Amino acid sequence: MSEMRTQALACRDAAQVLAELTTEAKRALLQALADALHAGTGVVLEANARDMAAAREKGVQGAMLDRLRLDEARVAGIVAALREVAALPDPVGVVTRRETRPNGLEVERVRVPLGVIAMIYEARPNVTADAAALCLMAGNGVILRGGSEAVHSNTAIAGVLRQALAAQGVPEAALTLVSDLRRETMVELLQLSDIVDLAIPRGGEGLIRFVAEHARVPVIKHYKGVCHLYVDRAADQALALDLLVDGKTSRPGVCNALETLLVHRDIAAEFLPRAADALGRRKVELRGCERSRALVPAMKPADETDYAAEYLDLILAVRIVDDLEAALAHIHRYSSDHTEVIATRDEDAARRFVRGIRSAVVMVNASSRFSDGGELGLGAEIGISTTRLHAYGPMGAEALTVERFVVRGDGQVRHPESRT
Amino acid sequence: MSEMRTQALACRDAAQVLAELTTEAKRALLQALADALHAGTGVVLEANARDMAAAREKGVQGAMLDRLRLDEARVAGIVAALREVAALPDPVGVVTRRETRPNGLEVERVRVPLGVIAMIYEARPNVTADAAALCLMAGNGVILRGGSEAVHSNTAIAGVLRQALAAQGVPEAALTLVSDLRRETMVELLQLSDIVDLAIPRGGEGLIRFVAEHARVPVIKHYKGVCHLYVDRAADQALALDLLVDGKTSRPGVCNALETLLVHRDIAAEFLPRAADALGRRKVELRGCERSRALVPAMKPADETDYAAEYLDLILAVRIVDDLEAALAHIHRYSSDHTEVIATRDEDAARRFVRGIRSAVVMVNASSRFSDGGELGLGAEIGISTTRLHAYGPMGAEALTVERFVVRGDGQVRHPESRT
Repeated sequence: MSEMRTQALACRDAAQVLAELTTEAKRALLQALADALHAGTGVVLEANARDMAAAREKGVQGAMLDRLRLDEARVAGIVAALREVAALPDPVGVVTRRETRPNGLEVERVRVPLGVIAMIYEARPNVTADAAALCLMAGNGVILRGGSEAVHSNTAIAGVLRQALAAQGVPEAALTLVSDLRRETMVELLQLSDIVDLAIPRGGEGLIRFVAEHARVPVIKHYKGVCHLYVDRAADQALALDLLVDGKTSRPGVCNALETLLVHRDIAAEFLPRAADALGRRKVELRGCERSRALVPAMKPADETDYAAEYLDLILAVRIVDDLEAALAHIHRYSSDHTEVIATRDEDAARRFVRGIRSAVVMVNASSRFSDGGELGLGAEIGISTTRLHAYGPMGAEALTVERFVVRGDGQVRHPESRT
Repeated sequence: MSEMRTQALACRDAAQVLAELTTEAKRALLQALADALHAGTGVVLEANARDMAAAREKGVQGAMLDRLRLDEARVAGIVAALREVAALPDPVGVVTRRETRPNGLEVERVRVPLGVIAMIYEARPNVTADAAALCLMAGNGVILRGGSEAVHSNTAIAGVLRQALAAQGVPEAALTLVSDLRRETMVELLQLSDIVDLAIPRGGEGLIRFVAEHARVPVIKHYKGVCHLYVDRAADQALALDLLVDGKTSRPGVCNALETLLVHRDIAAEFLPRAADALGRRKVELRGCERSRALVPAMKPADETDYAAEYLDLILAVRIVDDLEAALAHIHRYSSDHTEVIATRDEDAARRFVRGIRSAVVMVNASSRFSDGGELGLGAEIGISTTRLHAYGPMGAEALTVERFVVRGDGQVRHPESRT
């Protein structure tokens, strides 16, 4: 048996132990992991320094390098995140429905852990602890396959956490870090369909496509966020402007940032120049349709690729639309199924927009930047699904469980002639 | 663009129309489909006669031939099933959670259709109508790819239903039957990951493995049902015997039939001979472990393959176990994650069994034969998932939807400095 398969089987056995832990035991376990990580800060920072040195040597810089970097404050942040996960409601064992059938059978739907979750990720070493914590709290074993650039950091964090698991009497295989970083080993992991219940890739589009292409286990994907703001004819324009500035500029590099502004033609002449002014002062480059450019001549022309782009930068695509239906048609064509926003005071328009949008998150008069597990009340987030199955939108601990059936009877049989 | 892709895109557009229909409109639509199928009985039977003739010519017989056969009563049954689906609760639009965040955002979780569902199935032409109805009621478009042996029946049923859709003003692409039955076209369908939201294969293990192997779209599988009955030391033996006879003999060819009996050693000497007697009178062949055979000498010896087998026949594997934990260990090893049953009067044993079992359905003192969407209160069933994701166990209309987020605000922004 291959090393990868052996490890995965051990993780599955450990997951069975986790699945049966009480809520209190899981909380204590996560607090112990947090304590251990706090105590191990020095070891982790030392390992991170090696990753940083290697990255610098390779010429990595800017945001990429920053994502890799740990310092005392960041490790403290990871420790705090572990304690937050420990305080989350436990989704396991929750009875979501209960019904007594006419024949007296009591049918319950009860949440159980998924089993074994494979996290495939790049760069950020905090994912090693964050993802592991959420998986464990939901009673799952987790197999972590991080990027080679963070290998020392990931190994140090996982090592500290595994020691703490063992000290708590939980098999350390419950948290398994893949040390063999060859692509073919990742592919092998993604094809262990009799062991791995779910793969969650987090990283660039290339990684996610690679995982989707090679997986034989279920995958929940999050490709990208091409988020739209539609400013309706009946919008409160000051409010719309706030949403626009927040959506585009408060953190342009994240997936819930705005990428496209759609404006109803009836208010475009008033709204667009105001928007151009507010965004211009914040160094945002605008790329618009012909009609937009007639109103804001400084705007560059937009083409198809602009409307499809996830800029993750201070650039915004702009288009004037004839009505709400035209806005919906544009969004259907270019949406990445992540998050769309309408600004309007017209209740009927809001309803039509909500009904017409198929994306995971649809917002009325609120910033797209709230499309986040923490902000929407999930407590913590393991990713944002743009796959319209199992979970759609931000995924918290509950999304790492599934409902099954527990049935209690008193000797009911399907066919009376079976009675002996 | 290929024909398959063109058809799938048309189905997706039609699905958008379905997604926005009211419950009343969908009920009326399904009643119209039922009326049309009733009126088209003659056409359907004529087509079925051609399939039957071709099958006989190929030497098909027995249960296989029976699965293919339609008559007036069976078509009436399909019509009745359509009317039952029309009366089901509409899962779409249901608000499952509602929360007001500290910043005033109102966050709702609302059920929406999955989008486009591909059904891949064999033989039974009733699936063409049954699956279509459930998909449509949940607001989804459906692409049906049936087996070549039922091609005339499927084409006739789909034709009648599509005419009725069009007459109701719904694009007939909402129900698309794949007419090109080449394997490579099925593979193409299974790889349309930008269009198809879910594939559900129904049929033999070979078909399901083929789908799982080639799909790039999410697949919910149902491989097989190796269902276990564990008769605990504290079982009511008469009750356990009823469950055993019902589970094994009331319909041995289905996936919720029992395949293995596990008996606690303390009651084996009393229970096993009774069981052998009751099953023997019903022509069930027993294959047991050494200890079982010591009690029932007529029993044939069982080997590994017997405990892994889904017999779908009047054969039962038998094993004596030392205790409940040994029963769980056996089930963990051989289970297909479908349905497991315990017979016991010991509440604590029942709890330990329920907690220890990871299968989709776990039953206490009830026949495994109730593991069925209709019996468990789902109204109708599109399949039984043994995939521990999205849905686990019998899948009804609700399993053809997913929750998304609807957020209403009053100008909330994530960062106060975004205010203009």
